[in-house]
This record gives sequence, structure tokens and C-alpha cells, in this order.
Amino acid sequence: MTVRAGNLFADVSGGCAGEEAFGEIFARPGLKIERIISRGQASPPECWYDQAWNEWVIVLKGSATLQFEEEPASRALGEGDYVFIPAKKRHRVEWTDPRQPTVWLAVHFE
Amino acid sequence: MTVRAGNLFADVSGGCAGEEAFGEIFARPGLKIERIISRGQASPPECWYDQAWNEWVIVLKGSATLQFEEEPASRALGEGDYVFIPAKKRHRVEWTDPRQPTVWLAVHFE
Repeated sequence: MTVRAGNLFADVSGGCAGEEAFGEIFARPGLKIERIISRGQASPPECWYDQAWNEWVIVLKGSATLQFEEEPASRALGEGDYVFIPAKKRHRVEWTDPRQPTVWLAVHFE
Repeated sequence: MTVRAGNLFADVSGGCAGEEAFGEIFARPGLKIERIISRGQASPPECWYDQAWNEWVIVLKGSATLQFEEEPASRALGEGDYVFIPAKKRHRVEWTDPRQPTVWLAVHFE
């Protein structure tokens, strides 16, 4: 049986400025593990994610700020910082570092 | 509503040599996200993990080698290397770096 394997940091620096990359690492009914590489992108102002799935997400390289609609201040995330985003909890990516790629690992589940 | 958050690399260097640390980061029926810190530990020879759950695991700091019973050679894992270990696939940790902590992030699911 083949074991699915790879490196999460492969090809991180290859992308273009202004291009955000989403890559599925592993998927199974009810579960998806995804790599996201941001290069300075942010959600448009007043544009909120309102997801049907739960998401546990961690920043592994770079930095970002995440805003929850119901919280007065946004959250700064650096290397190793993780946060659980329950389904339907409205949030947006306020900022990602434009000087280096920000690598996120997201675990989505029902 | 409180958002569960933290840093995966917090307190990594605080442990003692020879002590392996398992910490639950997030749990939900059918899903568990866990941090493991190895400091030179390995599975005893001929001692195989034979887990009822699936495991997707990534090395985020340090290095290790992982052996699958049915594979002739072991797999070297460095920073960012991940592998999917299906339930009941017999494996053991052959080696972890004794000079620095090895930080694993494991996603266990049914």
C-alpha cells in the first residue's frame, strides 16, 4: 500500500507576488487538510468568511492578522500560532505579510 | 464565544532530555489534533504501533525516521515532511534527533 507523503514547505517560494495558493494535502469524507500560501493578500474590507465547516488553522511561516466579526480587536498570528474557527463564525483575513510567503495549514472538518 | 487559540511551539524547549511529551491541542468526536515532542526517543526494537485510527502527521521542527513494517527502508522526515498512516498500518519511530526537540503535529481521525 502506498503511503501518501510530501513536504509542506515544497515550492513555497515559487509563486508570484499577488497570487494566493490553495493546495489540498489530504481529503477524506468529512475532513480536508489544506495548505494555503498568502503573499500579502487580505480579504476585501467588510467581506466575511462564513463557512459551513469547522476549521482549525495554524500559521507555520510568515505572519498574518485575523479578524472575527464579534471581537473588537484583530488577532496577530505568527509562526506556530493556531486558532479554531467554528463553522459559521464570521471572520476575515485582515493582513498577511507582503515581504515573505505566509504558509497556513488548515484542517477543515464537519 | 471563546476562540481556542495558542502557539504550537510554546514551551518546546522546556522539557527534560529523555522525556517525550504528548499534548492534546484540539479534540472533537472522531478527530484529535495532538502535538508530540520527541527528544531522542524511538520505539523499542520490533515494537510496532498498530493503531485503530488514521493518522496524518507532520514534522515541524527537528527530524526523525519512521519505519513501516511492510517497507524495506525507513523514511527520513525533516521539517515540513508529512505522511499519512492509515489505521492498522504497522509502523514504529526508528529514530528522533537527540540534539534538538522534534515537534510533530498529528491529526488523528476515524
